[in-house]
Amino acid sequence: MSITKQKILNVGAGLVRRKGFNHTGIQEILDEAKVPKGSFYFYFESKESFGLELIEVYVDFFKSKMEEVLTDKNISGLKRIRLFLNNFNELFISENYTGGCPLGNLAQEMGDLNERFSKKVSQAFVMMESYIQNCLKDAIKSNELTKKINVAEMAQFILNSWEGAVIRMKVEKSVEPIKLLEKIIFNNLLK
Amino acid sequence: MSITKQKILNVGAGLVRRKGFNHTGIQEILDEAKVPKGSFYFYFESKESFGLELIEVYVDFFKSKMEEVLTDKNISGLKRIRLFLNNFNELFISENYTGGCPLGNLAQEMGDLNERFSKKVSQAFVMMESYIQNCLKDAIKSNELTKKINVAEMAQFILNSWEGAVIRMKVEKSVEPIKLLEKIIFNNLLK
Repeated sequence: MSITKQKILNVGAGLVRRKGFNHTGIQEILDEAKVPKGSFYFYFESKESFGLELIEVYVDFFKSKMEEVLTDKNISGLKRIRLFLNNFNELFISENYTGGCPLGNLAQEMGDLNERFSKKVSQAFVMMESYIQNCLKDAIKSNELTKKINVAEMAQFILNSWEGAVIRMKVEKSVEPIKLLEKIIFNNLLK
Repeated sequence: MSITKQKILNVGAGLVRRKGFNHTGIQEILDEAKVPKGSFYFYFESKESFGLELIEVYVDFFKSKMEEVLTDKNISGLKRIRLFLNNFNELFISENYTGGCPLGNLAQEMGDLNERFSKKVSQAFVMMESYIQNCLKDAIKSNELTKKINVAEMAQFILNSWEGAVIRMKVEKSVEPIKLLEKIIFNNLLK
């Protein structure tokens, strides 16, 4: 990918995460990226196709974070999930609780407006869940988790509930809602 | 409140819920409300102050729904929560899973962009939680709920997780994420 295109996508990823897709103007992205006017449509057919490529940027970000933390077999399954949540809390704190989850944001904003966005975000959620599922499976294998659970359902529930807690964080400007999620998940659901 | 102002707010409530606050134009609202141009700024100082009044429309909607279902002492505490969730599922199904929760939507969209919106939405969430809390207290009193729980924390967790499930619904176009929430909440957390 050309450096200019990469620059547009990186700057766009930050702006769209903070301001929303529809509320971010193409000119604004080009200005911040210091890229000449007219470049946009050289690299992207439309704002929609730019948005669809943006989703891939976000997906790659999550995939690398999840690969890094959630697949490390030297750490127990449940500890990996805890570590992943804590890493994101640190990120959120460093950003003053702004931005939230870029995929949750787009699900909310674009879920009713663009079916192509919806489908891509839905696939991303399924990918994210699969990492959590594997941690839960390892936790069962090692007897770290003895409660009978349906791992596919629990993984989805954890992800969806995390998205909800992240949204609550945005208005509270605090990670307390996410810490509450951790507390209830680990003390009541995963034992 | 004048009929015209009420009309602008009602039409705005529907449009903003589906399209987002920033993505909904004032002209679009006036066109759909069949209200002459220029009326908007007669009733509202700015788009922001319109948005703040919109939040009150949403809050009143939730308050009346919650009063109706969550305070009926003839029904047990946990059944009231179930009923409330089911009523919203029916609404979501009738709307083809679009729209979601207008307050969750605004928390996500405006949480980083406007502190006045954030504060109002945060207060609304606290109000919504208090109804759930009261149901949980009644469930404990009547021994419907015997597990030891912190009612304030559990009420917040249920609300936040519901908001997350509603966002997932938007991309899946299905109430399954909300049914999964119900299943885990009632089978694993509230017993």
